[in-house]
Amino acid sequence: MASFLITGSSRGLGLALATRLASLPSGQVGTIFATARQDNSAQLKELISASSGRVEFVGLDVTDKKSVQEATSLVEQKLQGKGLDYLINNAGAMDWNPAGVEGMDNLNEIFNLNVTGTHEVTRAFLPLLRRGEKKSVINISTTLGSVARAHVYEQTRSPAYKITKAALNMLSVQYAQQYASEGFTFLLVSPGWLQTDLGGSRADLPVETGAEKVVDIVLKTGAHQNGKFVNIHVPGWENAEGNNSYAGEEVEW
Amino acid sequence: MASFLITGSSRGLGLALATRLASLPSGQVGTIFATARQDNSAQLKELISASSGRVEFVGLDVTDKKSVQEATSLVEQKLQGKGLDYLINNAGAMDWNPAGVEGMDNLNEIFNLNVTGTHEVTRAFLPLLRRGEKKSVINISTTLGSVARAHVYEQTRSPAYKITKAALNMLSVQYAQQYASEGFTFLLVSPGWLQTDLGGSRADLPVETGAEKVVDIVLKTGAHQNGKFVNIHVPGWENAEGNNSYAGEEVEW
Repeated sequence: MASFLITGSSRGLGLALATRLASLPSGQVGTIFATARQDNSAQLKELISASSGRVEFVGLDVTDKKSVQEATSLVEQKLQGKGLDYLINNAGAMDWNPAGVEGMDNLNEIFNLNVTGTHEVTRAFLPLLRRGEKKSVINISTTLGSVARAHVYEQTRSPAYKITKAALNMLSVQYAQQYASEGFTFLLVSPGWLQTDLGGSRADLPVETGAEKVVDIVLKTGAHQNGKFVNIHVPGWENAEGNNSYAGEEVEW
Repeated sequence: MASFLITGSSRGLGLALATRLASLPSGQVGTIFATARQDNSAQLKELISASSGRVEFVGLDVTDKKSVQEATSLVEQKLQGKGLDYLINNAGAMDWNPAGVEGMDNLNEIFNLNVTGTHEVTRAFLPLLRRGEKKSVINISTTLGSVARAHVYEQTRSPAYKITKAALNMLSVQYAQQYASEGFTFLLVSPGWLQTDLGGSRADLPVETGAEKVVDIVLKTGAHQNGKFVNIHVPGWENAEGNNSYAGEEVEW
């Protein structure tokens, strides 16, 4: 009965990940700490009340160190001496700048949320993760954060999102290096272009599909994937050249 | 007679770049704007007085938007209607955290200097660069910013430096994409591990060697290198496996 903590669970992928995990057998998935800045998501409240206590809300603003510390203490109490098995760093934001990189005015703000927020949450939960059996940290990244694939996304005017996710990748690889010897797994996952507030309605996949595929990856991961960056696998997304945008492959940096 | 602007010129690589450029024939290198936060570097003052007016000091704090705007206006006046040919974004900082990534407390600060600072300077000088003949922006990066090479630098405890330089790479590639059609060249250069305050005394190369090799690259660059990331070329740095740390190759992301 593994325990999970997900950041940014009030909507979008975070909410869908909590929902997907809560739908799995309780022998496989134990407590799910669904965290968000505010306790005001009707959908998350609904999930919590239908979950027979398996999904618990924890207030957590990843950009506020005090909030991170309070959430860590609360989760520690709730775990009653047990460790945390999986930390899923999902909270994040995407920019949209029609003027492209020259128009980018919110880089520091988005960096603080997408990268420093992940860093602060990760290091705060390290002691609880050490006591866990899985010691797994999943950082939600994106193929848009791959510099090697930048040519594919040239027309996507989200400069700060691309920059901060490239930075997140380097952050994660360094955690992977530093804690490999303790049996940790730090894994970067690109969840696909999902129909959420962040991804917009023209996106490729329903958020439930992205969440299902990410959870498949999370539950199978282990030390062999420490420091890797992987894409989800969704059959049927072959393009004219026979390439699949969601081939479950490792993503180039 | 091309014009140059270098950020972070009070010491280290920035000072050495200004010195190297000033040593070249005045038919090749015209005015060199050596910028720094404060006008208090004895070495820079010496270079300026010995330069017969070729090297000019411009106050510029890359983390202060007002300072960036004032420097832009001053350089515009000094150029008297001409454009700026080369912008060399060199200002930056490196962290050293013996506790590794878990001990990293200065990520936002270093990001603001290394990435947002480069962004603010670049977009402020775009109008002057458009009027220049070379339209070249050189961003000083490092092989430590290559996620693909992270295994090489696992023992280098500079997590924020690595993260922010990976982010700088993605910033630069986006500028390269957006301004390619206007004839711009955005080039990332790894100047080598240099004996400076930043690199320390145990570094591989004298700063003059790094500066000479970077200037060689700068003067030869052009549209064929737009969006690329290159290493300097220093013969004689082959290791036991016959690989050269400074082979002048393109660096993987």
